Amino acid sequence: MNRRTAAIIGGGVIGGGWAARFVLSGWNVAVHDPGAHAKQDVLGALERARRSYPAIYDSMLPPEGRLEFITSIREAVVDASWIQESVPERLDQKRAVFETIQKHSAPGAIIASSTSGFRPTDLQNCALRPDEIIVAHPFNPVYLLPLVEVVQSDVNSPEFVNSAMSVLESIGMSALKVRTEIDAHIGDRLLEAVWREALWLVRDNIATTGEIDDVIRMGFGLRWAQMGLFETYRIAGGRQGMEHFMEQFAPCLELPWSRLTDVPELDGQLARKIARQSDEQSGHRTIAELEEIRDTNLVAILRGLKAQNWGAGKFLRKCEVGMVAVKGASSISCPMRTVERVVPPDWADFNGHMNEARYLELFSFATDVFLEAVGCNQAYIETGGSYFTLETSIRHLNETFPGARVFVDTWCLYGEGKKLHIFHSLLNEAGDALATGEHLLIHVDLLQRMSSEPTPQVAAAIETAAHAHQGAILPDWAVPKLSFNRTEAST
Amino acid sequence: MNRRTAAIIGGGVIGGGWAARFVLSGWNVAVHDPGAHAKQDVLGALERARRSYPAIYDSMLPPEGRLEFITSIREAVVDASWIQESVPERLDQKRAVFETIQKHSAPGAIIASSTSGFRPTDLQNCALRPDEIIVAHPFNPVYLLPLVEVVQSDVNSPEFVNSAMSVLESIGMSALKVRTEIDAHIGDRLLEAVWREALWLVRDNIATTGEIDDVIRMGFGLRWAQMGLFETYRIAGGRQGMEHFMEQFAPCLELPWSRLTDVPELDGQLARKIARQSDEQSGHRTIAELEEIRDTNLVAILRGLKAQNWGAGKFLRKCEVGMVAVKGASSISCPMRTVERVVPPDWADFNGHMNEARYLELFSFATDVFLEAVGCNQAYIETGGSYFTLETSIRHLNETFPGARVFVDTWCLYGEGKKLHIFHSLLNEAGDALATGEHLLIHVDLLQRMSSEPTPQVAAAIETAAHAHQGAILPDWAVPKLSFNRTEAST
Repeated sequence: MNRRTAAIIGGGVIGGGWAARFVLSGWNVAVHDPGAHAKQDVLGALERARRSYPAIYDSMLPPEGRLEFITSIREAVVDASWIQESVPERLDQKRAVFETIQKHSAPGAIIASSTSGFRPTDLQNCALRPDEIIVAHPFNPVYLLPLVEVVQSDVNSPEFVNSAMSVLESIGMSALKVRTEIDAHIGDRLLEAVWREALWLVRDNIATTGEIDDVIRMGFGLRWAQMGLFETYRIAGGRQGMEHFMEQFAPCLELPWSRLTDVPELDGQLARKIARQSDEQSGHRTIAELEEIRDTNLVAILRGLKAQNWGAGKFLRKCEVGMVAVKGASSISCPMRTVERVVPPDWADFNGHMNEARYLELFSFATDVFLEAVGCNQAYIETGGSYFTLETSIRHLNETFPGARVFVDTWCLYGEGKKLHIFHSLLNEAGDALATGEHLLIHVDLLQRMSSEPTPQVAAAIETAAHAHQGAILPDWAVPKLSFNRTEAST
Repeated sequence: MNRRTAAIIGGGVIGGGWAARFVLSGWNVAVHDPGAHAKQDVLGALERARRSYPAIYDSMLPPEGRLEFITSIREAVVDASWIQESVPERLDQKRAVFETIQKHSAPGAIIASSTSGFRPTDLQNCALRPDEIIVAHPFNPVYLLPLVEVVQSDVNSPEFVNSAMSVLESIGMSALKVRTEIDAHIGDRLLEAVWREALWLVRDNIATTGEIDDVIRMGFGLRWAQMGLFETYRIAGGRQGMEHFMEQFAPCLELPWSRLTDVPELDGQLARKIARQSDEQSGHRTIAELEEIRDTNLVAILRGLKAQNWGAGKFLRKCEVGMVAVKGASSISCPMRTVERVVPPDWADFNGHMNEARYLELFSFATDVFLEAVGCNQAYIETGGSYFTLETSIRHLNETFPGARVFVDTWCLYGEGKKLHIFHSLLNEAGDALATGEHLLIHVDLLQRMSSEPTPQVAAAIETAAHAHQGAILPDWAVPKLSFNRTEAST
């Protein structure tokens, strides 16, 4: 059994998403799926994930793992420490798969089912080593949505479940331990409730699929992406609080505000009606186009929440703590590598390339990394000192496109007292220069909002950096244009 | 009856949100609510809306309307062309309010109820002019979420309903005409379904309120904010399509994946349990803090979707078509005012002020407005011509903070052939200079990705602009630093 080796049994939409997430997290992955389209689907998922998953982080993912397609379950699972089952939702089929897996898997390997409905007890029944089977239920697209529900039964040891949680967290997932096993766990119960009600609305000609989608994405979907249900209602309750809100809405439970006390019959007629309405709504786009749009939207939403340090965005920041921002950025080399990242898909503008404001976003981030290396970090800023930019010069040398892996190299051209002059080069993987960014900064007292001397520690670190960079030969396309002689500190 | 005069009857969370949206859309608003806290609540909503609502647009809202608090319904409604009722959800109370309103309102005035549950027929019953009453059901926060459900009964004329839809669209709302009246319309049926299921999950100790919220916001809430339910599932169906997806999941409807076939008893014990869990989850923040966080998150999500021209973001862009980007920006004045906007709350960085990359975002937007004025618009870009930036210089003169109303004035310093040199000043409302941005641009052939001559029309318009700006005296803090003599076009 090898650490960071996963077997993916079943390569559909969910299995493909798992494979992509593991590979991009540096795991070697063996996929087993006898289906004719499985290889193509998994490679498609990996391609989409490469475009979007690294883009939600501002730190670098580890080097990709190896992806293989294996014709026998035995070979796929024999070395794996994590075995993810994502075969169709039929209990007999899943049990048969577990039987084959456990004939060949190493004892102690974690076997996780992607089932949306079955309880662990159902799955473990008849198994060779039932205590090594749990539920790890993800949400599509698995490579972007953080949530995974971990469901256990009484036969799983707490240590086993905790080690499974750790693995999931190490691949960027927000693992929720479901304490009590029930059919459909938690998420799919909520989804199923909406789904049933939505089916009634379509069946009764109250709304079309497109209208229902608009109700969600123009309305409460926007709330739910960041706060969910209860925190949203807590706010609606206002100063009178949650108990008041509950009392106010309790009578509605007695009202016929739902047809859910009955189950709609999903006959061919209703299925065709929904398929027809869905075609009208979205049929002008292929599934591949919709996937690309969805993923870019998710990147934009996740990055937006990340900037606010909230919800899924707060979780992503937490993940980055364990990641390397830039190799070796903590030491002051010359030049210092301050950014290594993939250009997010939502950074393109109408000219098809990275928008000019994003160049400054990258350079600004690079400046922050440099400042952190010289001791001007979050803790320092909280004591009331920071650096403000006085002047910036940006030169564009080549175009940059979404999906490109880019790097920033940083030189400290001058650093004395409260003055700091730094120079950035943006490069692509081939080492071509894409742009340069140059900044004059001044140290400020955040309380007075006026220029001030940095602490002796920070001043010394900056002087050391400036000294190390002194006389460094810049590449010939890197031409500094700014100087403190020409600029008066005006802050 | 005055155009653009609204009466808000009931000034709670929903009424306050309506008042804020109308005022910020340039309507004069009279609020009637005898409650002790109503005035404070409505002013609080307006304050929050001022901070967030203008921030979702890149164009200017009209000047604010006047907000008044009126002690009698008669005086509040007598001049109003739109009367929004948001009193508590009790049918007798609502009917009494409609009776008083219609004694004094002008015939033809639109009376809209915010009811989440009642049908128009229920509300119209007993009314003096039932055909002037409809449902316009919004979602909290009313000043940010675009959705409003418009529900009619048989007594409302199509013209009346259409004119109500137009008014709602004119205040930035995405009005969905609900064709058939049912209890709770569409949105609240879906919400009620989730709510009932969530109550069971809490009651049965399966999950806490915090866990349920995390399931939503780490999982499907992120999908729903942009695509809703059916389009999301269409993708999950993959190449086999929507009908296959339906068939695959049909059996689940027969499974006990929901407790919704039964209704939980919302007794005091369950209400207290939920209130206690909600306190643990969110009680360390006041409602005002949560409102501010929610609104900033919504601004970030909406702006993210807007950049992708998708869902609620696509709708916001459509709203802007009818708005004035900048007063008089279509004509080439000297300087030309190219930006008038409020700094969005999500543009702040850890120093508490507008992040430096946002300065370039503003200047980049200002450049686009200038280019549009000289004929380099979307249609032109689609023919394969555009301008790329070669070099940028930014100087920071003063700090800028979220919520500030800022302006950009633009000079065309040079424009000949494919070369363009423009200079921007960022100002605050007092006219203080905050920063300057200067850009050298070159015309390109988007297909060849090489520099090229603009069309004669665009070249002539730019030369006219450069000529008009020639010899213009820049303010003394505006010091151009760039020149084409020092830069070779390298694209």
